[in-house]
Amino acid sequence: MSSSDIFIGETIGTAVLTLLGCGVVAGVLLKRSKAFDAGWLAITFGWGFAVLTGAYISAPLSGAHLNPAVTLGLAISGGTEWGDVPIYFLGQILGAMIGAVLVWFAYVGHFQAHLTDRAVVGGPGAQDTKKADAAQAGAAGPVLGIFSTGPEIRNTAQNLVTEIIATVVLVLAILTQGLNGEGKGLGVIGVLITALVVVGIGLSLGGPTGYAINPVRDLGPRIVHALLPLPNKGGSDWGYAWIPVVGPLLGGAIAGGIYEIAFA
Amino acid sequence: MSSSDIFIGETIGTAVLTLLGCGVVAGVLLKRSKAFDAGWLAITFGWGFAVLTGAYISAPLSGAHLNPAVTLGLAISGGTEWGDVPIYFLGQILGAMIGAVLVWFAYVGHFQAHLTDRAVVGGPGAQDTKKADAAQAGAAGPVLGIFSTGPEIRNTAQNLVTEIIATVVLVLAILTQGLNGEGKGLGVIGVLITALVVVGIGLSLGGPTGYAINPVRDLGPRIVHALLPLPNKGGSDWGYAWIPVVGPLLGGAIAGGIYEIAFA
Amino acid sequence: MSSSDIFIGETIGTAVLTLLGCGVVAGVLLKRSKAFDAGWLAITFGWGFAVLTGAYISAPLSGAHLNPAVTLGLAISGGTEWGDVPIYFLGQILGAMIGAVLVWFAYVGHFQAHLTDRAVVGGPGAQDTKKADAAQAGAAGPVLGIFSTGPEIRNTAQNLVTEIIATVVLVLAILTQGLNGEGKGLGVIGVLITALVVVGIGLSLGGPTGYAINPVRDLGPRIVHALLPLPNKGGSDWGYAWIPVVGPLLGGAIAGGIYEIAFA
Amino acid sequence: MSSSDIFIGETIGTAVLTLLGCGVVAGVLLKRSKAFDAGWLAITFGWGFAVLTGAYISAPLSGAHLNPAVTLGLAISGGTEWGDVPIYFLGQILGAMIGAVLVWFAYVGHFQAHLTDRAVVGGPGAQDTKKADAAQAGAAGPVLGIFSTGPEIRNTAQNLVTEIIATVVLVLAILTQGLNGEGKGLGVIGVLITALVVVGIGLSLGGPTGYAINPVRDLGPRIVHALLPLPNKGGSDWGYAWIPVVGPLLGGAIAGGIYEIAFA
Repeated sequence: MSSSDIFIGETIGTAVLTLLGCGVVAGVLLKRSKAFDAGWLAITFGWGFAVLTGAYISAPLSGAHLNPAVTLGLAISGGTEWGDVPIYFLGQILGAMIGAVLVWFAYVGHFQAHLTDRAVVGGPGAQDTKKADAAQAGAAGPVLGIFSTGPEIRNTAQNLVTEIIATVVLVLAILTQGLNGEGKGLGVIGVLITALVVVGIGLSLGGPTGYAINPVRDLGPRIVHALLPLPNKGGSDWGYAWIPVVGPLLGGAIAGGIYEIAFA
Repeated sequence: MSSSDIFIGETIGTAVLTLLGCGVVAGVLLKRSKAFDAGWLAITFGWGFAVLTGAYISAPLSGAHLNPAVTLGLAISGGTEWGDVPIYFLGQILGAMIGAVLVWFAYVGHFQAHLTDRAVVGGPGAQDTKKADAAQAGAAGPVLGIFSTGPEIRNTAQNLVTEIIATVVLVLAILTQGLNGEGKGLGVIGVLITALVVVGIGLSLGGPTGYAINPVRDLGPRIVHALLPLPNKGGSDWGYAWIPVVGPLLGGAIAGGIYEIAFA
Repeated sequence: MSSSDIFIGETIGTAVLTLLGCGVVAGVLLKRSKAFDAGWLAITFGWGFAVLTGAYISAPLSGAHLNPAVTLGLAISGGTEWGDVPIYFLGQILGAMIGAVLVWFAYVGHFQAHLTDRAVVGGPGAQDTKKADAAQAGAAGPVLGIFSTGPEIRNTAQNLVTEIIATVVLVLAILTQGLNGEGKGLGVIGVLITALVVVGIGLSLGGPTGYAINPVRDLGPRIVHALLPLPNKGGSDWGYAWIPVVGPLLGGAIAGGIYEIAFA
Repeated sequence: MSSSDIFIGETIGTAVLTLLGCGVVAGVLLKRSKAFDAGWLAITFGWGFAVLTGAYISAPLSGAHLNPAVTLGLAISGGTEWGDVPIYFLGQILGAMIGAVLVWFAYVGHFQAHLTDRAVVGGPGAQDTKKADAAQAGAAGPVLGIFSTGPEIRNTAQNLVTEIIATVVLVLAILTQGLNGEGKGLGVIGVLITALVVVGIGLSLGGPTGYAINPVRDLGPRIVHALLPLPNKGGSDWGYAWIPVVGPLLGGAIAGGIYEIAFA
């Protein structure tokens, strides 16, 4: 793969992943949306199919990492050259920011309608509005929750551990694809299975922190949230921002190590 | 592929797609249906599997475009000959109208029971009845909503942009299938993945406009709605009708261009 | 395939299909079940994965018809020899009865608990209990609804048409599998896609009649319902019983004809 | 496969299976989780994708049994050597215990928050809290329900029969994979179909007992529940513990016998 293919593939693929991923949260959370209040199952399937779409589109160009934790795990286990890692990272963070801007484009009228009527916001939202005490504990507000993750119970060590565990599972499933007879990089069935693994991780381990499991999926949209001229948007919760970056990177590295020890 | 295979394949395939696609909305919206009030997840999975079924049936005959935006994107990127495009379009619009008539046949008693009791209509419908203000804003009424899409917040530029973005994602995913080692045209796994991509687009980007992402899926049933002798059916909202035609066509063309620049 | 392989395969496969298919309705309908009130999406996915499981198990032995409408469509289009048709039918009806008995075994305590407290029965059941007027119109009661289908609006012509349309879609999707490069009979991916097509048909066309789309899936369990010593089980609605037999058979035959004209 | 590959593969795979499987129940049951009250469909898909992930990761090493009932069925039908059976069992029970501990790590703050407010616990939980009479009948309490299964109606014979029937279906579907042209052991598509079969079994037959269908999936987490220092955790219901061990083993053996008679 050439450097430009990697960069273009990761940019487009991560943009699509973030567009559809943050898009489903927008759809479920914004109160004038047809998907409003569609529930956790809708969010987890939406994120899984976001991975499916982004990975399927970008696999021929860049191998569809779309996630620095995946790139790191592949680099550690020899599936990706270390020299390509910065190009992957650059495309991923750029793509994630583009995707977040596209979510804003797609839902711009709904953001406006939602934000100008904050009184109703605390109502029946899908993510963290269900419980008033969570909101009081400082969890990310409804609009930030469209862009980035936030914990239900804020505890640095616990939130880090949850993100690490969830990412180890994700990256391990991706690393073993080569062993399942699909060649290095993502095969067509591998893309599908990875997507359903992401649905599964969301259902099973997304409860405490909203499963970033991908540094750029969280950081890119958070930067966009900070920059966008949304009225009443609230803060971008930068105090939490390092956890969904460091946790997944640690998880990817651990998965790379487990793979080297147990599978290689 | 011969012209007659293309025409027959697209007609049958788009009829099945529209029958099952509009069918799920009928099932969820009509108040005496067993699927009544089954929710947005049911609608999005129903539409995705409608694409799966129509595409799987028609793939051997016509390559299963079933959507002028897909045909346009393929023509621009060299996957379909321009001379075949009118045949594709003709089969698609004819099929979409046939499919909409079949929905009426399948649910005829339920349409009658629903329409003769309009007082209840504004209640717990799945699409746009959830919010009374949406209805007041002129969104498509419950019966038209079975046939065609309507925006929750009516804004020409915003609605166009949402349809364009959603269609770019769809057509890009279809165009890159050849690069995923499945040959030009839809392979079996490609059909499955496209269907799940459609579920994902519905979950993530369907909130504002109901995701036509296919000109004939919207226009064909709208014509049928205008012609059918349903009591109290209301208007066919022709003022909005051009948006789900032009938006997806622009999206398909843009996707074709992106493909040519980034992937070819 | 030998006659004994066909008979054994169809018996086991249809037993599994009916066990899981009627099982999900039992789970959703019986009020002490963990799946109680899980909704229409649960029922449609449950039936789809019932087809997946039964077909996957029986495909190597009999080609996994599991449905007289499929066998008829295949016979008309040349995919199955007419001489084998009676063996298929015998295995299918026997399997469907065995499956229905196994549902009773699996849920026996729940049937008893449910039936001895009929007052609550009309409450929040998933199928036809949602609307009291449907019950008054003579729709199948909750316990019969576990075994066999019943219409929400009883109208012979309309109910027949709905079953015919839904079965045409199903059998057409199965007949075109050979053209999708998977050989005659069900390939592994074909089994998966057929299962999701069944989910789609349920979501989209199941609203009016509960989508038998398979004569034995309805008749076999209805016979078992008539024979089982359930207290307060109510009638077996024999007046309706011919529709989910004749409708699907007509649908299968029409699909066979469409296939011969358009695809062969 | 070497003994160490089997042991390591089964340990890692069963740990992932149990982590995601028990994790989804934790997510749906613990009241501060984002997945709280997501319903039975979320639990059944979560368990299915838990099987998908664990099996996909471990298939290259050990063939991904992850379940003594599967190992037993394969040994009876000649797919696994009897001498390897103890190694499979050891890896499976160890993995299940590791997975249960990881669930505790991932949700530790939520366990604490949930358990210190027991008054609300009986509320809207997903498993057995929906019905107060079930709780009175001695069904497993909400925290044990995260780790292990418990019947809604406690009846030794009935509970055993339900587990046996459900496990026969599971193991039969796994045994016939070799006949579906995927070689002995799990192929990539076989892993996917098995996962969806597990979703189907959960939807269709999970209602009465919560579908252990796997001895270690129940026993491993139950041991961990007994050892963990959770406040107010309640008993581990050892009186029921033998049923989800013996039932699935009998089911696996019966499936092995059916396979030998009907398919071999």
